[in-house]
Amino acid sequence: MALIVQKFGGSSVRDDERIFNVARIITETRKKGNDVVAVVSAQGDTTDDLEAAAARINPNASKREMDMLLSAGEQMSAALLAMAIESLGYPVVSLLGWQVGVKTDSNYRNARIKSISSERINAELARKNIVIVAGFQGINKYDDISTLGRGGSDTSAVALAAALRADKCQIYTDVDGVYTADPRIVKGAKKLEEITYDEMLELATLGAQVLQNRSVEMGKKYGIPIEVLSSLEDKPGTIVKEVVKVEKMLIRGVARDNDVSRLSIIGIKDTPGMAFKIFSALARKRVNVDIILQSVGRDGTKDITFTVPKSQSKDAIEVLHEMLPSLNAMNVICDDHVSKVSIVGAGMETHPGVASKMFEALYEADINIQMISTSEIKISVLIDMDDADKAVQVVHDAFIK
Amino acid sequence: MALIVQKFGGSSVRDDERIFNVARIITETRKKGNDVVAVVSAQGDTTDDLEAAAARINPNASKREMDMLLSAGEQMSAALLAMAIESLGYPVVSLLGWQVGVKTDSNYRNARIKSISSERINAELARKNIVIVAGFQGINKYDDISTLGRGGSDTSAVALAAALRADKCQIYTDVDGVYTADPRIVKGAKKLEEITYDEMLELATLGAQVLQNRSVEMGKKYGIPIEVLSSLEDKPGTIVKEVVKVEKMLIRGVARDNDVSRLSIIGIKDTPGMAFKIFSALARKRVNVDIILQSVGRDGTKDITFTVPKSQSKDAIEVLHEMLPSLNAMNVICDDHVSKVSIVGAGMETHPGVASKMFEALYEADINIQMISTSEIKISVLIDMDDADKAVQVVHDAFIK
Repeated sequence: MALIVQKFGGSSVRDDERIFNVARIITETRKKGNDVVAVVSAQGDTTDDLEAAAARINPNASKREMDMLLSAGEQMSAALLAMAIESLGYPVVSLLGWQVGVKTDSNYRNARIKSISSERINAELARKNIVIVAGFQGINKYDDISTLGRGGSDTSAVALAAALRADKCQIYTDVDGVYTADPRIVKGAKKLEEITYDEMLELATLGAQVLQNRSVEMGKKYGIPIEVLSSLEDKPGTIVKEVVKVEKMLIRGVARDNDVSRLSIIGIKDTPGMAFKIFSALARKRVNVDIILQSVGRDGTKDITFTVPKSQSKDAIEVLHEMLPSLNAMNVICDDHVSKVSIVGAGMETHPGVASKMFEALYEADINIQMISTSEIKISVLIDMDDADKAVQVVHDAFIK
Repeated sequence: MALIVQKFGGSSVRDDERIFNVARIITETRKKGNDVVAVVSAQGDTTDDLEAAAARINPNASKREMDMLLSAGEQMSAALLAMAIESLGYPVVSLLGWQVGVKTDSNYRNARIKSISSERINAELARKNIVIVAGFQGINKYDDISTLGRGGSDTSAVALAAALRADKCQIYTDVDGVYTADPRIVKGAKKLEEITYDEMLELATLGAQVLQNRSVEMGKKYGIPIEVLSSLEDKPGTIVKEVVKVEKMLIRGVARDNDVSRLSIIGIKDTPGMAFKIFSALARKRVNVDIILQSVGRDGTKDITFTVPKSQSKDAIEVLHEMLPSLNAMNVICDDHVSKVSIVGAGMETHPGVASKMFEALYEADINIQMISTSEIKISVLIDMDDADKAVQVVHDAFIK
């Protein structure tokens, strides 16, 4: 008998029919002799609806009260799922973050799990109950409700799997696994059987949006294999783990990220310490800077270009405008019409020629590269947003047959 | 500086505008230098909507999971109300049953409060926060969420007022106080300045539906004066307390209750123990019997007639039909088309002639009395439902000028 943690996202429980579908997946797992702990997100658009209700009342509501409001979404879906399981004749109990003892820091709306107590869940499992846990929520040291950020239920599930020493953590979603590229956009995109935590992290960061990053980090930290699979089709998904079998495939996936703005500061005086000044000021404003490019100095000035998430470009521009005089710089330019296209694969660091193969594919498609960034397991390029779909397709074609 | 507990029902917070109206009542109270703890119900139809959602999934859902589901309603309204108060510029914090330490028994959906810990609320008040408490909910000894039954937020409020030794408990609702009769039906109905706990209990039981009974019982037990007043008009309401000033008014109110069925068992063998047999069987089925009438024995048989709530008449008839042979009885007759009309007043026990005055009024209006029941502070009659409105009016006219 194994202990399996299963997670079901909002679209998997969006209506009565889907709730019963999930109830059947859980009870089938149970019928095979397993203990099951199921983590559930809020139904369909509930979280969006609650956010809209809050915005009508007070667009600047405190994050503490937002978490009090939003966490009700998972409470409702957990109770309804438990009721569906009851109606199938299985003993079940739903539990909230505070009942499970999911302790987090006090960073409301984006809290991190610090610890989980296994006591209550183990007691319920000993009573032969299926356990439904409201995802996305925990409590901080003040006994106040905190939420884990968008996709936080993934992290709830992996953290529970670690705390309970579960044999498996299955993340059910509306896609049937991790693909080499978004199958809605790229012809020939292939489902991966396996992928490493590091590759998955790069893909998630790059906009693949399959798993919340923290859940993958936690899986890596505690060595919990995470299976991503469909709640609508009964077939194997993709397993995220530490080491995967060697495949011919050189790269694991091609990702596109449109949530990016390119900022340039033009005509900075070419003296030491300018980059430090700029990026420490942005860090103080909590702006996440990604790719950075610095031009070679010329006429005593240089330009610095970098990318930030679209949502932070306004903040960044504000900071930079204030700094212009102290930088002796001329201007700040912002371009929102860009995309980042990346290839990810743990194998590429030992295979020379991956980058040039990517650039060649883009060149042949007549796509101009604005910026380049590389790490051990990924290569990213910044291009015009209009070229992004084509870029993903030609790069995918070049690497994945 | 006083500590005031205020309670706002579902209709008082049913939309954004009403939420801000309540936020203003609370902050006005605060501005006068008072500490405020506000108990809030779920918005408008939220509880009904959640019950309907549950019924679609599983009409026989466990009461534990129902409470898990329903308690989310008060959580959402508490958070939204706190956000509205934040936007008015006041420090505020919303708290749930478990955070406040509202401990109840394990009778899900109809739990009774056993204790409330004042620690967290007092700490928040010391920090100068307005405290919003989600009504209707508590937790039992298993740390599971329980709810207090319809109107349970009234009881939450009075229990909190007792635990915090509040100076005042105000129940805001959509009527502006307790009337001598339902003002929508009875011409000349008057708002009462004051009423005793006992009178209020009789009126609530009799269908006046202003306060949950348990909240009045708790107010009586701990000596908490309860003020019933309108959230829509700024004027004094009705104060429920132990002793009220003597008024000319002999009776405090006339109430009508349509939620009543009359059952008769005909031709019971006239031997001892028959009534015991019948009513102990009904008690085992948890049927609430109200007025009982036993005919004088004749031809060796007698009839027993009694009233029950309409919702329990089916259960009662089932029990009685099973018993017919052992009672040697002939038949069970049920009449759902009846109403109970009652007058209530602590003064009546020392004033002879109250009953006859009531009967005279009914006689002059040509209304037939089917059954009569009396206690120290009330007289009830059962009549045809078609006569009920007229009966309330003529009895009211006879006593209240």
